[in-house]
Amino acid sequence: MRGVIMYAPGDVRVEEREDPTIVEPTDAVIRITATCICGSDLWPYRGIEETEGPAPMGHEYIGVVEEIGSDVHNVAVGDFVVGSFFASDNTCEICRAGYQSRCVHSVPMGAIGTQAERARIPLADGTLVTVPGTPSPAQYPSLLAASDVLGTGWFAAVAAEAGPGKTVAVVGDGAVGLLAVLAAKQLGAERIIAMSRHADRQALARKFGATDIVEERGRAGVTRIKELTGGLGAHSVIEAVGTQESMEQAIHATRPGGHVGYVGVAHGVELDGMQLFFSGVHLHGGPAPVRRFLPDLIDLIVRGDIDPGEVFDLTLPLDEAAEGYRAMDERRATKVLLTV
Amino acid sequence: MRGVIMYAPGDVRVEEREDPTIVEPTDAVIRITATCICGSDLWPYRGIEETEGPAPMGHEYIGVVEEIGSDVHNVAVGDFVVGSFFASDNTCEICRAGYQSRCVHSVPMGAIGTQAERARIPLADGTLVTVPGTPSPAQYPSLLAASDVLGTGWFAAVAAEAGPGKTVAVVGDGAVGLLAVLAAKQLGAERIIAMSRHADRQALARKFGATDIVEERGRAGVTRIKELTGGLGAHSVIEAVGTQESMEQAIHATRPGGHVGYVGVAHGVELDGMQLFFSGVHLHGGPAPVRRFLPDLIDLIVRGDIDPGEVFDLTLPLDEAAEGYRAMDERRATKVLLTV
Repeated sequence: MRGVIMYAPGDVRVEEREDPTIVEPTDAVIRITATCICGSDLWPYRGIEETEGPAPMGHEYIGVVEEIGSDVHNVAVGDFVVGSFFASDNTCEICRAGYQSRCVHSVPMGAIGTQAERARIPLADGTLVTVPGTPSPAQYPSLLAASDVLGTGWFAAVAAEAGPGKTVAVVGDGAVGLLAVLAAKQLGAERIIAMSRHADRQALARKFGATDIVEERGRAGVTRIKELTGGLGAHSVIEAVGTQESMEQAIHATRPGGHVGYVGVAHGVELDGMQLFFSGVHLHGGPAPVRRFLPDLIDLIVRGDIDPGEVFDLTLPLDEAAEGYRAMDERRATKVLLTV
Repeated sequence: MRGVIMYAPGDVRVEEREDPTIVEPTDAVIRITATCICGSDLWPYRGIEETEGPAPMGHEYIGVVEEIGSDVHNVAVGDFVVGSFFASDNTCEICRAGYQSRCVHSVPMGAIGTQAERARIPLADGTLVTVPGTPSPAQYPSLLAASDVLGTGWFAAVAAEAGPGKTVAVVGDGAVGLLAVLAAKQLGAERIIAMSRHADRQALARKFGATDIVEERGRAGVTRIKELTGGLGAHSVIEAVGTQESMEQAIHATRPGGHVGYVGVAHGVELDGMQLFFSGVHLHGGPAPVRRFLPDLIDLIVRGDIDPGEVFDLTLPLDEAAEGYRAMDERRATKVLLTV
């Protein structure tokens, strides 16, 4: 089969890879319908995160089950499925508490690489969620978004306790930040402040439910959020970048007793203990347990209540993945969908 | 009046200070019945935290109202009262959300100095809670504990979401850590692991409700907590020290999705963003909003349900405060009560 391989920073190729097979009786093999490039794929692409290439890439996927192991019971051959970036048994104590991304048996899908024609899905019963009926191709982008960016934005909004009566600020206008706006809206937030200086992303943020846009960053951004919130700061702040500046911006824009939900993979971030102490905020985040939310997200998408697929602003065939990486790296695209 | 003044690290004196008077119409002046020395007073005493001496000391107090300003309505002259280490109006949006230690009008009582015969209490209506009836001298230590160490331990337990079905680990066996054990017990925690290597503190922890004692620290301590919790870590971990080691110990001893409640004033602590991200824990803490809990804590004490005053293991007259500081610094005492 064809699949994306990263050899080194900036060097992404689509090559022949070995076809996946059932290894464990709990595995499934799926034929991938669509996959995409993640903001987190840019960390190794930019050389900020070390990689030992050649490495398979990709951890987002929708597809159709082609084969199941002897111990798979919840999905059947022919099912159209969505999974997330960690395979999880969905039965251990950590999964049952809603933290499937930290399942005691979790397998990172990035190590398997779903930017490919097929993929082996470990722990298929726990990992995969079947889409009811037969989704239309028009629904593919939204279902694919559920696999990571929507699920991650949703987790961030839940972690930040976005909800009725709350003012929510979102740091980061990438796909996750934009979908965190959508999540905050769905969760009933009263006011949603998107922090963005790009007109097209501002427009999408407004479409997803943002009531205010703040263009300032860093300290100036914090000052502006405080001005908009009676000097107190937002109740809920979502961090969807993963840098020192964005984390500090999020913490300082939150009122004492408020909640920061952070999902940007923290790179080179050091939090000053004393500052955090006196901020008095709640801090929660990490790799999103997307599996917790997938059934509900799929329902919302199938019913047509939300259209998170709008974050994809470039669609390319899998074979042109290298151009997709370039487009995201150069900020020509927010999020690239790869058709298979 | 007599009061404690810190001139420099290690140099604490009891001297004549000016008698407090009503400055604002919202002030009260109280005659202090008992005060005490806080673990946080040791930071400047040890020179770890910079101070510009001579500085008045103390922020814990119980006493009797002697005088009230023209705009004080909730407390009357003669009332026996307890307050906490931040004066707060208890009416602003932050106070109403339960974060009185970050009241928009908060005044740190440490700047006023309650290791003295009298003290001016700003925002008396919001700050002071009247003890019903006339407390007996036997109740003074427990009521005084409510002023900070009990209220802080209680907040830590609430921040860590201690409760029924939960395994709670407590890092730190000072007065706050010990009273966090008591709080976790009162909140219904199933299992409470106290981390301590001092026999007397272990005994008090057990008396307060600890079911297990772990003597190991740092990585070994984390390993032991994991062994006791099926490899997962505790649901709730309370951090009551404020050092790099104790914060890391707390975070790593918590299961993914679990809660860390931290109340040790963080000194020189830097949290690694990537480690925090992948820990997946909830982190909440800061200066405890003791005022939120004071009415309930006073009720529990007056009813005789809890006896947090047992943390005081040395009682001295105010004039011997310097010996009290030495005893705590040299770990000859856990917590020193000063009678006035």
